[in-house]
Amino acid sequence: MVEAPSPLKRVLVTGGAGYIGSHVVYALQNTRRFKVISIDNHHNSYPKSLLRVSQLSKSELPEGASAQDIETTEIDAHKCNLTQPEQIRQVFQKYGKGGIWGVIHIAAYKAVGESTEIPLTYYANNVGATISLLQVMAEFECTRIVYSSSATVYGIPPIIPIPETTRLQAESPYGKTKVMAETIIQDLCQAEPGRWRAISLRYFNPAGAHPSGVIGEDPRGRPGNLLPLLAHMAVGRVKEDKLMVFGNDYPTPDGTCVRDYLHVLDLASGHLLALDALAPGSTVFDNCPTPARVKAFNLGKGKGMSVYQIVEAMRKATGFDYKTEVIGRRAGDVPDLTADPALAEKELGFKADKDLDAMCRDLWNWQSKNPQGYGED
Amino acid sequence: MVEAPSPLKRVLVTGGAGYIGSHVVYALQNTRRFKVISIDNHHNSYPKSLLRVSQLSKSELPEGASAQDIETTEIDAHKCNLTQPEQIRQVFQKYGKGGIWGVIHIAAYKAVGESTEIPLTYYANNVGATISLLQVMAEFECTRIVYSSSATVYGIPPIIPIPETTRLQAESPYGKTKVMAETIIQDLCQAEPGRWRAISLRYFNPAGAHPSGVIGEDPRGRPGNLLPLLAHMAVGRVKEDKLMVFGNDYPTPDGTCVRDYLHVLDLASGHLLALDALAPGSTVFDNCPTPARVKAFNLGKGKGMSVYQIVEAMRKATGFDYKTEVIGRRAGDVPDLTADPALAEKELGFKADKDLDAMCRDLWNWQSKNPQGYGED
Repeated sequence: MVEAPSPLKRVLVTGGAGYIGSHVVYALQNTRRFKVISIDNHHNSYPKSLLRVSQLSKSELPEGASAQDIETTEIDAHKCNLTQPEQIRQVFQKYGKGGIWGVIHIAAYKAVGESTEIPLTYYANNVGATISLLQVMAEFECTRIVYSSSATVYGIPPIIPIPETTRLQAESPYGKTKVMAETIIQDLCQAEPGRWRAISLRYFNPAGAHPSGVIGEDPRGRPGNLLPLLAHMAVGRVKEDKLMVFGNDYPTPDGTCVRDYLHVLDLASGHLLALDALAPGSTVFDNCPTPARVKAFNLGKGKGMSVYQIVEAMRKATGFDYKTEVIGRRAGDVPDLTADPALAEKELGFKADKDLDAMCRDLWNWQSKNPQGYGED
Repeated sequence: MVEAPSPLKRVLVTGGAGYIGSHVVYALQNTRRFKVISIDNHHNSYPKSLLRVSQLSKSELPEGASAQDIETTEIDAHKCNLTQPEQIRQVFQKYGKGGIWGVIHIAAYKAVGESTEIPLTYYANNVGATISLLQVMAEFECTRIVYSSSATVYGIPPIIPIPETTRLQAESPYGKTKVMAETIIQDLCQAEPGRWRAISLRYFNPAGAHPSGVIGEDPRGRPGNLLPLLAHMAVGRVKEDKLMVFGNDYPTPDGTCVRDYLHVLDLASGHLLALDALAPGSTVFDNCPTPARVKAFNLGKGKGMSVYQIVEAMRKATGFDYKTEVIGRRAGDVPDLTADPALAEKELGFKADKDLDAMCRDLWNWQSKNPQGYGED
């Protein structure tokens, strides 16, 4: 039985239960224009996140909301594995040819360090799975995709802030998986310009959480990223009493590495803008150099923040007295990764407005309300 | 039931029934040291080729050959699809953990032009399949691989002859699949230096056939490459009475494009040398810059031949009076692709000795004995 057509646009979000995925699903629901289908293998996420998103969206419905508006708050969530084409196919079969309007492909393994240890798993999950997903999409005439890329595609960038025209030269297997998937999508759009439309979003450093504190980042194991680690320290969830700072002798204002943090809800809004830019009538591809309708955009604030600035902002948000200890530089770290966000602003109308204080406040709100993340009960 | 251990080294050849595969299988059998297992989906090959290889090898056995020598002439041929991991797994299961000594991974889609039309199929068959193959190899503790790469990884090379240190910058989806697979193999060897050993062989232009004329190149459809096309013209298998020459205004001695042709049996010998270099005790990885045991070698003669020189050599070999007509340059063609073969000679002991006349003579011997290729009966 194939689901009946719906006036809502059905959008498949892969990795929908993850940190970014859950906020993207929330942003989609918030428009009341989409029906979300999610695929997630819960490798680094929890099914509870989507229940919470759904509740949150329901709680924000106006009184007397229409049946269709209520439908937008429901999620068709599938636990399945993108490395198994048959499992993807089953989800598409449920909606039939043309039944899914577009895909936001977020699912991926994302730890740079781990990718150097188990590269094959990264290539299988991030590249092999993307190929399978695109093949199944083609089968079901679903040819619009927003792809989650990453600032790591730039490797050690020659220019700061980094424009999208920078050559792609990822250093880690993780970064290379993102370059490969972007390349595959680009070649596909090049081959069938009348059929496929794609936007790759190169994320800089997403942070924060929905201000309600009901969804947020909940990495399995010790957080690999700075902000979640600081939140875990403040809430007493990690043992260490000192933050290790990897080098304070970089050519940056205070010597520590600089990154471009943006609020996860701003990042999520970028996905909405990209998705809408895949619709007929969009002008976003008008200035493409070839007939292929494919583009890549940086999603960042365009404002670098140093490790010390982040620690200070978290001190302010949490009241926690962080101790730091400077140790040697970490292999592979780049001094400054700040986006040039001009293209996304000009062509997508994207702007990451929320500031670092808002990110830290919302992160702390989530973490203090959910000290054990989704796993607390 | 897992096959009993054997004093012969079991080598899995993917794409074993193809043009290059069949000559590699022959070269392996010729040493009497290997037992060949072949995987092929017969997309661009014929099962008959392996029957012929086997007969050929048997015919070359000395009288009173040992049972083990006879065993080397047999092939365990599987028709299966590398995009289906379960099918690969079944082959490995037959021999159990450690039962297959190494893999020569030749199978791939290989038409540059077609790859721009159906890139996703190329990425699935050449990259996705390689990832799956490596995963299954890892499962079965088979961690030696010779990978069939291509001169196309160099794109438009900045230096002629092309050394292996040239940056990889493929232009076509086909070429990119080869770069990606090389990259994946390299990262894997980097991650597990004590476990994996790999050599990528960057083929220039293989030509010719076994001098017996019982195996040779038999492309499905109109030949995409120059030499098989000339052979088909001479034997009357293609309709066209004139060879279209794509440009005679290149900066080359006679204005036509220059390529580095090598005899397919020389190419096959390069695979043997590479395979032996994966054995313990080999010194081929001694000068690697990291502990990773992975290298890439050009396989070419290091001698460029122009389109006109090829036509002239084929005229000599076939007696056929080729007509040519110069038409415009073909998009994507590079004036000169000649290998610097020094590294393979120094480190593998590889040398492509056979000359163009031998290639043309052996090609014509095959083609005239098999005007319809393997498909004649």
